Amino acid sequence: MVKVDLSGAKAFFDAAGPDYAAAADAHRTLFNGTGAGNDFIGWLELPQRIIDTELKSILAAAEKIKKQSEVLLVVGIGGSYLGARAAIELLQTPSHNRISGETEVYFMGTTLSPDAINELIAVLGDRDFSVNVISKSGGTLEPALGFRVAKALLERKYGRTAAKKRIYATTDGSKGVLHNIAKNEGYEMFTVPDDVGGRFSVLSAVGLLPMAVAGIDIETVLKCAVEEMRSLSLASPENPAWQYAAARQHLYRKGKNIEILAGYEPSFRFFAEWWKQLYGESEGKNSIGIYPASVEYNADLHSMGQYVQDGPRTLMETVVSFDVPRTDYKVPFELGDPDGLNYLAGRNFSDIMATVVAAVKAAHISGGVPNIGVSVPSRDEAGFAALVCFFEVACGISAYMMGVNPFNQPGVEEYKKNMFRMLKEQN
Amino acid sequence: MVKVDLSGAKAFFDAAGPDYAAAADAHRTLFNGTGAGNDFIGWLELPQRIIDTELKSILAAAEKIKKQSEVLLVVGIGGSYLGARAAIELLQTPSHNRISGETEVYFMGTTLSPDAINELIAVLGDRDFSVNVISKSGGTLEPALGFRVAKALLERKYGRTAAKKRIYATTDGSKGVLHNIAKNEGYEMFTVPDDVGGRFSVLSAVGLLPMAVAGIDIETVLKCAVEEMRSLSLASPENPAWQYAAARQHLYRKGKNIEILAGYEPSFRFFAEWWKQLYGESEGKNSIGIYPASVEYNADLHSMGQYVQDGPRTLMETVVSFDVPRTDYKVPFELGDPDGLNYLAGRNFSDIMATVVAAVKAAHISGGVPNIGVSVPSRDEAGFAALVCFFEVACGISAYMMGVNPFNQPGVEEYKKNMFRMLKEQN
Repeated sequence: MVKVDLSGAKAFFDAAGPDYAAAADAHRTLFNGTGAGNDFIGWLELPQRIIDTELKSILAAAEKIKKQSEVLLVVGIGGSYLGARAAIELLQTPSHNRISGETEVYFMGTTLSPDAINELIAVLGDRDFSVNVISKSGGTLEPALGFRVAKALLERKYGRTAAKKRIYATTDGSKGVLHNIAKNEGYEMFTVPDDVGGRFSVLSAVGLLPMAVAGIDIETVLKCAVEEMRSLSLASPENPAWQYAAARQHLYRKGKNIEILAGYEPSFRFFAEWWKQLYGESEGKNSIGIYPASVEYNADLHSMGQYVQDGPRTLMETVVSFDVPRTDYKVPFELGDPDGLNYLAGRNFSDIMATVVAAVKAAHISGGVPNIGVSVPSRDEAGFAALVCFFEVACGISAYMMGVNPFNQPGVEEYKKNMFRMLKEQN
Repeated sequence: MVKVDLSGAKAFFDAAGPDYAAAADAHRTLFNGTGAGNDFIGWLELPQRIIDTELKSILAAAEKIKKQSEVLLVVGIGGSYLGARAAIELLQTPSHNRISGETEVYFMGTTLSPDAINELIAVLGDRDFSVNVISKSGGTLEPALGFRVAKALLERKYGRTAAKKRIYATTDGSKGVLHNIAKNEGYEMFTVPDDVGGRFSVLSAVGLLPMAVAGIDIETVLKCAVEEMRSLSLASPENPAWQYAAARQHLYRKGKNIEILAGYEPSFRFFAEWWKQLYGESEGKNSIGIYPASVEYNADLHSMGQYVQDGPRTLMETVVSFDVPRTDYKVPFELGDPDGLNYLAGRNFSDIMATVVAAVKAAHISGGVPNIGVSVPSRDEAGFAALVCFFEVACGISAYMMGVNPFNQPGVEEYKKNMFRMLKEQN
């Protein structure tokens, strides 16, 4: 379902071109489970597994939350919030909480800023709410403290016993601090799979429960993801994950060490944040890795556009687009044509946007920036599922092509060691 | 008022250290107006000029808008929206429109996505609104089309005559498409100064009118900015703008070609976007320039943290912080200490955050990432004014040190040429 367009990158390839043989090897390593980190490739079969196991209980919990609560507070950080936030902004809208009239979803446990915590409490007001706390271990400081705050708010409003009925814990299936708390307290529980790292977990309960509460059809997401994973498992140079992985690795070897993920839909902003974690955490190790950056066009054509056009020629640009818009809007006609734009009156904004996308592509290529196009038919459950599976599979292939383990993140522990030591010393 | 802390960068300097003599030269060039682009340095004296000229009418217009309208639609792109959006998120909150109970401010004209346009119309609903259209020329496609949409909505709701009383045009003082429209139609007008580029214009009517409508005390912002510009004009190695500019140029020469601007306040996110335009557009030319990126910590410690810690050693990190939080929040105590965090119970989140900032700094330095600290006393009008003036002056110095004109943006025109040609051909 995903189409990769390398026409804007070809001029930057050398004669040999992207190394499809290496992509084939990496693809085999990934799907055969013979590479480094192979105990963390459960995400390849995750959609079917969830359909077979937790889907019904996730849907039931979402219904219960929607019935009981005007607000769901999701407590989680990194892979425990980015996927759900990306999905909700992309598939509903960034203004979902404002205009949907449905249960609102807010994310906490991502910051220690007291101002931000107090702001969220103000947004919550005195409305009925539930809490979905998401943490594999329960030992990560930010969501652990966020959960303390959320729980205290719940208990103050509903009392200790009723509060427990409003807490949903997505955590390890058998061990860990949060698992034990949830079991002791009798929270409804969902599983963070053992064989799926946080950044690959959006199609588990981690992402699916908040998405379902926000009104996304997660059954369709999962069914489409099953299809997509099947098609991405095929060994073929037509496999879009091969094309993307091989092209970006080829360009990286040729000095393009920053990849800008660009979208023309403002609703795509947090999908790009999800992508940044996926690629940055999977590839950025052993002193190598493409730097993952993102822009929101058209807005950022007027902020980062100058750099992209004229700065150091170390950039590649990957543009994600949707073939068909959900809605459209016609340029209004103006009597007297005061701004000289009546030649566009009556035209759909979607047409004009398509022209701009082509104009920007041509300009950036002529400025020395290779352009990779990634497209899906539409901004809906199927398109989201396809993009998630595509970027995940391509990430595994790409990291194996670089010779790194895509599934660990040893560097994330560094600051935590300092932090816990310093916090304890201060006591 | 701004303090620059280079203690985390020193280990990465060579024996000679940052080139303060070159910073002094660049500073002189900037303030004496003897460098390239010297017809665009009006921002150095802009705060006092606005106090002397437009401040009163901006305040009066803001009062009128607040009285007449529940919503202000600001139509502008690039420098015509980033400053105001950065100010409103930083000084009010990212949820300002949700919780303030005051006139809400939304930005349009930054996208051609019909879905995003329809979303904004849904957010607007049938509420009373006014429009502030901001464009030097009026010829930029995105805001010009955005203004057509906004005007059509106004005219449908209020009729042609009454609509004109709800439109405020911030544009060139004497010429251009938007100037002429505004004059013919009798809109209230404010000035985009001739000698100030878009990315330096936040302290003109461009930024100030939306800020005032959002309830920011712009008079205090301007008075503090006057003070700050005076102190930044002093030639001294103690000048924080010298320190920042010289340090980042030194690190750039030593291979640190990506600068990550990090903030620990979620409200800082769009200030970082403003900063990206300021530095990216000023320095990214002639195939050189530091790539400006940004992260929101703590959230992004769990997404980009791995790359920062262990990826290619081409990063420098600039951390913006506020000495004192506006509010605080204490970690709740929990009976039985189920998560083992009672040793933090009763401690302020602000204290814990300060510890995390120190822990992250130490971890990133030991991972090979130089750390530059930038701090102001508080997240208020004075702190905002100080940060704006500091980053602007340092940007001018830094670009002159690199040998580029800080005040042009030749590359931004490239895609526009393609775009207008293609749009006209399609007709």
